[in-house]
Amino acid sequence: MRPIRAGLLGIGTVGSGTWDVLNRNADEIRRRAGRAIRIARVADKDLKKARKLVDGMAILHRNAWEVVRAPDIDIVIELIGGTGIAKALVLEAIAQGKHVVTANKALLAKHGNRIFAAAQKKGVMVAFEASVGGGIPIIKALREGLAANRIEWIAGIINGTSNFILSEMRDKGLPFATALAEAQRRGYAETDPTFDIEGIDAAHKLTILSALAFGIPMQFAKAYTEGISKLTQADIGYAEELGYRIKLLGITRRAKHGIELRVHPTLVPARRLIANVEGVMNGILVKGDAVGATMYYGAGAGSQPTASAVVADLVDVTRLITADPGHRVPHLAFQPDQLSDTPILPIGEVETAYYLRMRVLDRPGVLARITRILADSRISIDAMVQKEPGEGEKRVDIVMLTHRAIEKNVNAALARIERLPTVVGKVTRIRLEALL
Amino acid sequence: MRPIRAGLLGIGTVGSGTWDVLNRNADEIRRRAGRAIRIARVADKDLKKARKLVDGMAILHRNAWEVVRAPDIDIVIELIGGTGIAKALVLEAIAQGKHVVTANKALLAKHGNRIFAAAQKKGVMVAFEASVGGGIPIIKALREGLAANRIEWIAGIINGTSNFILSEMRDKGLPFATALAEAQRRGYAETDPTFDIEGIDAAHKLTILSALAFGIPMQFAKAYTEGISKLTQADIGYAEELGYRIKLLGITRRAKHGIELRVHPTLVPARRLIANVEGVMNGILVKGDAVGATMYYGAGAGSQPTASAVVADLVDVTRLITADPGHRVPHLAFQPDQLSDTPILPIGEVETAYYLRMRVLDRPGVLARITRILADSRISIDAMVQKEPGEGEKRVDIVMLTHRAIEKNVNAALARIERLPTVVGKVTRIRLEALL
Repeated sequence: MRPIRAGLLGIGTVGSGTWDVLNRNADEIRRRAGRAIRIARVADKDLKKARKLVDGMAILHRNAWEVVRAPDIDIVIELIGGTGIAKALVLEAIAQGKHVVTANKALLAKHGNRIFAAAQKKGVMVAFEASVGGGIPIIKALREGLAANRIEWIAGIINGTSNFILSEMRDKGLPFATALAEAQRRGYAETDPTFDIEGIDAAHKLTILSALAFGIPMQFAKAYTEGISKLTQADIGYAEELGYRIKLLGITRRAKHGIELRVHPTLVPARRLIANVEGVMNGILVKGDAVGATMYYGAGAGSQPTASAVVADLVDVTRLITADPGHRVPHLAFQPDQLSDTPILPIGEVETAYYLRMRVLDRPGVLARITRILADSRISIDAMVQKEPGEGEKRVDIVMLTHRAIEKNVNAALARIERLPTVVGKVTRIRLEALL
Repeated sequence: MRPIRAGLLGIGTVGSGTWDVLNRNADEIRRRAGRAIRIARVADKDLKKARKLVDGMAILHRNAWEVVRAPDIDIVIELIGGTGIAKALVLEAIAQGKHVVTANKALLAKHGNRIFAAAQKKGVMVAFEASVGGGIPIIKALREGLAANRIEWIAGIINGTSNFILSEMRDKGLPFATALAEAQRRGYAETDPTFDIEGIDAAHKLTILSALAFGIPMQFAKAYTEGISKLTQADIGYAEELGYRIKLLGITRRAKHGIELRVHPTLVPARRLIANVEGVMNGILVKGDAVGATMYYGAGAGSQPTASAVVADLVDVTRLITADPGHRVPHLAFQPDQLSDTPILPIGEVETAYYLRMRVLDRPGVLARITRILADSRISIDAMVQKEPGEGEKRVDIVMLTHRAIEKNVNAALARIERLPTVVGKVTRIRLEALL
């Protein structure tokens, strides 16, 4: 059989990794796929760099549209990123009847519904294993490996940069800004780190996982996102003392009245395996009704790990390229006419447990007033730490863990607590999940 | 489309779980597979029990051959276990042109080569996700998710019973026999626990993983197997002191002159995620050249988790049932004419690090003689613990961790050490893996 010919758009970090893996393991891949897979054309704005990498083994283009429209290309690999030109190129590739492999989580989270509909209509595949969890085959696990299950929830460390920062803060006692600078120095964080540290990248990925788990369309606009930039050593220390670690988790859960879709710092019991996923590594917990809890762990980013997922997709697409579209795994795990319209819950409706830290004046009756307000809002306390005030110190920290409560009730109670004259400043509130 | 009709052989623990999951999640599964999947016939020797479970919703048989030969059955689900009648039934199902889904690791490890050849010839699929790691989709991850990689090694906790026993021994300080009795009381271990505690079950599973990882035939007879029944609290304690945990690992590695295939108790750094897989849970580390280390975690046994894998296979087979066999993933990950004849290394040729514990008379020069013997055999010491002898005590324990060395050299050195008049009894030797 003739080799499958791919056109690569973008030969940056992941693109050059893909080029490298596909060449280095060409024999292994052919023995698996039953057919050779070659990158026949490469498009990149930096022709000089591309020429050096490709070394005459593929046709080079400065104009990506030429690759997307080239009649000899079977699969377009989109590694440009972003939602601008990448979107137009992917839609054109589909229109040209070409299959697409992409690592672009932002594109799929925001425009996936349109892209998959176009692909469905044209009978082509859009594969995106590399969009979540780097080299971890989490898309395949969710879409195929756990197909027997009614998925109950997913909780994942799906942004390596923020996990690295949190690991540094805990291990070395660094403040957030210093840990971020270290991440930037190592090349884990961009000059503008907003996407990673504010949870936006994680929310893109979580949107994709949520759609696959629950058979719903992509709804990135409804995701709740809160980052790690306000976390302090005080909170990390108190959490530790209570037997917890703080992780930036993406959580999506099938609740009674809708689906939760939220990214935020979360206290997790220190004994849980996921609490021990350190540095830039990713770990994704998936709870199914039959299988129980499963976890998938590995490098969530980087040239070679992400290329591993891109090339796995190339093998999958190659295998099914001449097959009837009915034989393919549906893009969103469920048949396109079988998606559900279960709504995404606003964050106020979410039920979770909470870590609360407040600074109060060391006077009699303060605690009684606070606990009365919580009780009035039906928020019950699971654990509490109150420190002896230091010599001459008039303010003390009170830290509480609550049982599960509805977020809007917690917000209302905290607003009342903050109005107490004996409470100093704002209450710090971090969500807590037992992950059972 | 008409529903896919499966015939279930054996409605015991996993069989009843499969029946249950397929019925409970029928709608979810149909929305995914695009087609309903039904168990139309059930065979079990215990007709009374089967009748109660099936409640008139499938045709019951006492004779499994009737199900295997029934013209209305598309897929045979073999959950009888063992290598006797199960083998004959699977081969007959294939001869009848039926696809097979099985959880039978012993059957595949011992007779997989013959079974897959027969299936290949007949153009049918034999799916076996449930044979390793219960509900963890590890077969799919290895065969498809990591298809871009040259796999370097796999190290797995793939027997929940022995992992439960080791967790109990460490957590509660129980001796082996008491922890085993507890496992039996809870139904995790059989009355005759040999298969689980002596590593045979793990070796069956490892044989399957090794074949998939390296594109070699199943070679169970060449697997090295050593169980946990001789482990003592002394070793667990010393390991802990040195920063390690003892786990029963199945390890398969691509070495210079062949492939390692071995199951044995192993010291693992306590900080590694896999060292923290506790109780009956399974965890499988896979190292690929592109992706790096990935881990897959979940329930390795039990009715519903194993059923999760069986039903995932049913969905996969259903999807490809009318497809050209060329569109299917090859049974052993590599195309059948592309298997490799790389030999399995005898255990003497394996290179690993070691934990050594010996009891010696507390006299001058003893340690010098021991370290001289090790140096002569080119075994270098990485760490050592020697305890002060107790009041009036004439014997002391010496514990050493070595760097990597060839096993036959270690055996020769240990034989010399055991002949020293100052060394009391045998040297305890447990292998150690850094898993990097």
